[in-house]
Amino acid sequence: MRRDWGSRDGDFVAMSEGVRARLTALVDATDTHVAVPIQGAGSYAIEAAIGTLVPRGGKLLVLVNGAYGRRAADMAACMGRNVATLDCPEDQAIMPDEVERALQADPAVTDVLLVHLETTSGLLNPLQAVAAVVQANGRRLLLDAMSSLGAVPIDLRTTPCSAVMASANKCLEGVPGLAYVIAERTHLATMAGNSNSVSLDLHAQWRGFEANGQWRFTPPTHVVAALAAALDQLDAEGGVAARGARYGRHMAALVAGISRLGFRPYLAKALQGPVILTLLAPGHGFRFEAMYQALHAQGIVLYPGKLTREASFRIGCIGAITQADIERTLDAIGSYMHALGTQAAAD
Amino acid sequence: MRRDWGSRDGDFVAMSEGVRARLTALVDATDTHVAVPIQGAGSYAIEAAIGTLVPRGGKLLVLVNGAYGRRAADMAACMGRNVATLDCPEDQAIMPDEVERALQADPAVTDVLLVHLETTSGLLNPLQAVAAVVQANGRRLLLDAMSSLGAVPIDLRTTPCSAVMASANKCLEGVPGLAYVIAERTHLATMAGNSNSVSLDLHAQWRGFEANGQWRFTPPTHVVAALAAALDQLDAEGGVAARGARYGRHMAALVAGISRLGFRPYLAKALQGPVILTLLAPGHGFRFEAMYQALHAQGIVLYPGKLTREASFRIGCIGAITQADIERTLDAIGSYMHALGTQAAAD
Repeated sequence: MRRDWGSRDGDFVAMSEGVRARLTALVDATDTHVAVPIQGAGSYAIEAAIGTLVPRGGKLLVLVNGAYGRRAADMAACMGRNVATLDCPEDQAIMPDEVERALQADPAVTDVLLVHLETTSGLLNPLQAVAAVVQANGRRLLLDAMSSLGAVPIDLRTTPCSAVMASANKCLEGVPGLAYVIAERTHLATMAGNSNSVSLDLHAQWRGFEANGQWRFTPPTHVVAALAAALDQLDAEGGVAARGARYGRHMAALVAGISRLGFRPYLAKALQGPVILTLLAPGHGFRFEAMYQALHAQGIVLYPGKLTREASFRIGCIGAITQADIERTLDAIGSYMHALGTQAAAD
Repeated sequence: MRRDWGSRDGDFVAMSEGVRARLTALVDATDTHVAVPIQGAGSYAIEAAIGTLVPRGGKLLVLVNGAYGRRAADMAACMGRNVATLDCPEDQAIMPDEVERALQADPAVTDVLLVHLETTSGLLNPLQAVAAVVQANGRRLLLDAMSSLGAVPIDLRTTPCSAVMASANKCLEGVPGLAYVIAERTHLATMAGNSNSVSLDLHAQWRGFEANGQWRFTPPTHVVAALAAALDQLDAEGGVAARGARYGRHMAALVAGISRLGFRPYLAKALQGPVILTLLAPGHGFRFEAMYQALHAQGIVLYPGKLTREASFRIGCIGAITQADIERTLDAIGSYMHALGTQAAAD
């Protein structure tokens, strides 16, 4: 990131091509899909995928059990596309048989959008089963893999997806400012002129890459270089399986430790993904903002909650962190809660 | 850029607020306008401004004398807005009296878009005179100041603009991956729900900043931090006037030196802005790609041409470069052309 890459220069073009090829390989889709990077937040890639890949005369069914599913539906509606939602509670997984009923009840639906790991709660949806149902019913699946790609295995040879959307800065451990869509080549090739946006037109950006390897607009060169380095680090760690195992160990330690401190995880154990843990705020004068500040002073940054109904907060266990970081965090929370209890007893 | 900022953390919120305030102050619009950063390339900010600020029932007149004017018109058409263009040759400035005639001939036009400095050629359009005509005719002006803001003075107290769009990585000398729109507060406030895009909705992003200082989507924290540092460097250099003067000295040295080497600048002297110089490719077996490679090997990166009709190439004189860099570049081009001449004589 400390080098000032020339954005039209051959060295940078080669680096971009390398990143694109490695992203496609990550989901075992080298023969069928192409990776189209789109600078900006992950949400840009979701909007770009809907705008480019759902035909204007088609209809998108969004499977919703959290804020990111709702946002995808809002995006489709905002750009004037036909959209429906299948709404599930935030603490329950998307049920494949409900998806099947919804598809059979609405023949107009052409595309289905699933959020693989809902960051709202940390829930891991049953990708394999949903993908099978979508394929069996002859529809395309758009997979929001923002919080899963890089830590949860995704193999497009056995899991049929028309597109996978993710970003550089979650489980790939790059820096923020870059997202991408790994799109089925045969479908993408038919989608010229479908997007309502020049900036977020995946077809035009793909054609640009094919023509001369260049980004249509000045790319975030430092962020692309960071992703190339992050992919090297993923390889060095042993790939997706090893990274997922590390996150899983962190999550198990976090759940065990935080439960001992009296906090209750929001999700049932079987639904919990390895990336982010949602905890219900305890009563007894607990204020998340106060704990946030106390831990922040020790260099530990937690995450506020995003649930619709319950007061909650979240702890991430992704990123270049170690078991020692998890233990240090648990110790800090324990000390904070102990002081809070002592103070409450004294009041 | 080497710090991993927490994107929802107070430290980063404060940095974002500081950057927003400084961008508004740069164009003397603290009392009237608000800066809304939008992550991505400069083109994203152009599209966001058109989508958010031109009413769906309005009409945009784009003043075109280069590729960036044409792209803005394409963006408006792509998102289904009413759009017209006033087309001028690429080597001529936009004429204020022609703008006036076009506005009087088409009462449906609500907004006008001007590219301040057309990077296609390097031409600096007459902002002051065009802004006066647009205001006198009761329309709003959207100013694409991508290649001018930071080096060419823009004072919104005396130059009426509804919005100014620019990016972090040109004359502000930040890194790429971040753009922004400095929009008139009273107009922006009426534009809720006007955008066809969730990602590029300036009104929603502005409301988000007003509510809690946060970006709606994970921001490119390293790029924002780089812009904060770049604004410090702009202040240290003496502000926009001093930076513009430095670029002007570079441009004068470049024009004088390259003319001595037999190259002909594309633009008349009076139209040449201080940022990028377009040169017509000479005949006699000159191939820009070959010269590009020869200079690249010496650490000097030139820029291909973008004119519609003539073969050309470009040399930038913006960025953290010195007079010595300009001289080194001229020497390298001189040596290359000398070798080319010697070889041609030998053939």
